Amino acid sequence: MASWLPIPFKSHFSLANIPFGIISTSAEPTHRPAIAIGQHVLDLSAFAQNNGFSKLADFPSDQLNVFSQTTLNDFAALGRPVHRATRAYFQDIFRQETPYPEILKDNDTLRKQALIPIGDVQSHLPLSIGDYTDFFAGRNHAHTVGTLFRGAANALQPNYNHLPVAYHGRASSVVVSGTPLHRPWGQVLPNPQAKEPVFQPCARLDIELELGMFISKGNKLGAPVDVNNAEEYIFGYVLMNDWSARDIQQWDPWVVLADALEGFRGKGLENEVPPKKYLEEKREDSILDINLEVSITTAKGNKTKITQVSSQNLLWSWPQMIAHHSVSGCNLRTGDLLGSGTISGLEPGTQGSLLEQTMGGKQFVKLEGGEERKFIQDGDSITITGWSGTAEDGLVGFGECEGTIIAAVPRD
Amino acid sequence: MASWLPIPFKSHFSLANIPFGIISTSAEPTHRPAIAIGQHVLDLSAFAQNNGFSKLADFPSDQLNVFSQTTLNDFAALGRPVHRATRAYFQDIFRQETPYPEILKDNDTLRKQALIPIGDVQSHLPLSIGDYTDFFAGRNHAHTVGTLFRGAANALQPNYNHLPVAYHGRASSVVVSGTPLHRPWGQVLPNPQAKEPVFQPCARLDIELELGMFISKGNKLGAPVDVNNAEEYIFGYVLMNDWSARDIQQWDPWVVLADALEGFRGKGLENEVPPKKYLEEKREDSILDINLEVSITTAKGNKTKITQVSSQNLLWSWPQMIAHHSVSGCNLRTGDLLGSGTISGLEPGTQGSLLEQTMGGKQFVKLEGGEERKFIQDGDSITITGWSGTAEDGLVGFGECEGTIIAAVPRD
Repeated sequence: MASWLPIPFKSHFSLANIPFGIISTSAEPTHRPAIAIGQHVLDLSAFAQNNGFSKLADFPSDQLNVFSQTTLNDFAALGRPVHRATRAYFQDIFRQETPYPEILKDNDTLRKQALIPIGDVQSHLPLSIGDYTDFFAGRNHAHTVGTLFRGAANALQPNYNHLPVAYHGRASSVVVSGTPLHRPWGQVLPNPQAKEPVFQPCARLDIELELGMFISKGNKLGAPVDVNNAEEYIFGYVLMNDWSARDIQQWDPWVVLADALEGFRGKGLENEVPPKKYLEEKREDSILDINLEVSITTAKGNKTKITQVSSQNLLWSWPQMIAHHSVSGCNLRTGDLLGSGTISGLEPGTQGSLLEQTMGGKQFVKLEGGEERKFIQDGDSITITGWSGTAEDGLVGFGECEGTIIAAVPRD
Repeated sequence: MASWLPIPFKSHFSLANIPFGIISTSAEPTHRPAIAIGQHVLDLSAFAQNNGFSKLADFPSDQLNVFSQTTLNDFAALGRPVHRATRAYFQDIFRQETPYPEILKDNDTLRKQALIPIGDVQSHLPLSIGDYTDFFAGRNHAHTVGTLFRGAANALQPNYNHLPVAYHGRASSVVVSGTPLHRPWGQVLPNPQAKEPVFQPCARLDIELELGMFISKGNKLGAPVDVNNAEEYIFGYVLMNDWSARDIQQWDPWVVLADALEGFRGKGLENEVPPKKYLEEKREDSILDINLEVSITTAKGNKTKITQVSSQNLLWSWPQMIAHHSVSGCNLRTGDLLGSGTISGLEPGTQGSLLEQTMGGKQFVKLEGGEERKFIQDGDSITITGWSGTAEDGLVGFGECEGTIIAAVPRD
């Protein structure tokens, strides 16, 4: 699918993608929705105000104000069929032989107003998050970490294969890519035998490679979501670094719509335990297939790729997580964020946390330039990236999620 | 302090109180702020629109639109000094010898418009909750439950006395008093030896008597709150029933302002462990002194008071919870809800959960009419109430938090 707009060959934001985000510019600081396309973004507020959506028949015309909101929540709440039609419409708008050249391709005024180089925009949290639930669906990670803490015989908790384990997280501490973070303080035991904790900056700061998923439409309290209808509740995905020891989640600001990843799916990890009926899926390709990478760039400027792994290293699918989350009657709301849990393989170089790569801090990870790490040092920058598909067909990518750790704030 | 408005002698909503909430009426379904006073509420939207606040000098005049919002968040964000001045102003407005009779006492039109019998209004969630954190500060509860599960020698986890333990909860499942709740479903082990969980309605549904606290102003990510300045971050309090086995929190809809409880404070439970510096409080009366009661009303109509306990049965104060919550750098936001954890004494009849009263389901709690309970049965209604002060000086009460459990929704 070629575009009249120049899109670099290996761009994550090909015509096959069309991710959504929230931007502002120095000229117009109001937060507003946009899509990313190649090296540009399309300002959807300006696009909507200038009749850009006039040829999109499948869009509820009284809902165009979703594109003048400061978050994507209202757009997300319109549901999958509307997201699907909107994404397809943008593919039509931008394709070489667009059926609607008058809308943008041949409309100099609107192009100048709404099409902005991506380097000129600032990105913001795309949705207002009601609740954040972090699952633990990466069984390789759970097994390796469980072995470190409890030995191989008790690596997985007894309920692990029976249901998608999760914990509730804070929505307030979710930040976008690029936000620098101070090393956190906390009470820790100085050694395993110690009785008295000490208050100090975190010495074992780690990363966790995860996928994040946003809920589109919610369910009512007391009305669970059927696992085989749960896809309809998914808005889209982000890459996420769950900074561990501080409970801060950082992600790339572009939300890849569920439909953009529809063609990239397969089986996940095998579960020897037959799922309860409410977790039984009809489709067999319910696990997303995304190439994920983690790199570390030290203060000296040495960049090393430390992780390369497929997102198929999950035991539970997103529909299963949604079904389990709601099965007790718990309500999900538009904008709720669900995390996959750390995604890891079992081999060296495929693990999504330093805890695993260093065997619990017992061995070093070797970096470029002769450097080495057990945990994150001040000045280290972590970059996560991920994509599906090929450059020939157009990559469906997430861009980059980047975060740098700076020194702990001094305290008495 | 007498009022020109008739207020029943034992009303929880005396002039000494002035709790805030969000109401609607059948004539005007828009949610809007109100205060409760005796058997009436004052509609603050109508009051503000009719110059009701014209004599309140200490209120930022460009902020009067906080009273036309659908939640109290914007009012809460104005901070303690504004809440204090506003509460004092309403005491002036309603006192027998009001300095401003023209505002309401002698203003027939506004009285008719804004003063509504409390039975004619519907109450709603008073604040939009960003995050909900449930602490575990009731050490008697922690000790009794820990003894049941791990034996007396290991009743408290090693960190319990060193820091206020908490877990993150969901904001979506917080509901107001009066909302009926279906018994939840879940996976449970049928017996301790079982390897295979079963999916069934919860058999051990319990209550947890708690206090809830709302954050007024937030702190920035990376900027902890000083324990001795943390009172400034408190908006007010509610009574809360943390329905256990379902993770639903239910509360009375009136928020008692922090200032209304300023005179009712004392010491909490003794901690043999000296607190870390960031948890050291200068004041010695930082624990609230509220009389709390729990009653159960069965489907047959028998009502029994099962719990009577003081809120001083806490190890950690709200300022300590705030200081600990933010010490790692975690940000709190206006409207965040913090729970105290279950409040229990050690004697029979003082424990805030059935788990404790029944020794883990081993013995029955005797009810009126010859009934008895180990856990909550379908049709049972739980009422929590609480108050400080005396009827002579005017009670500062919370009203009632009521919830009824109805049968689980049938499922395959």
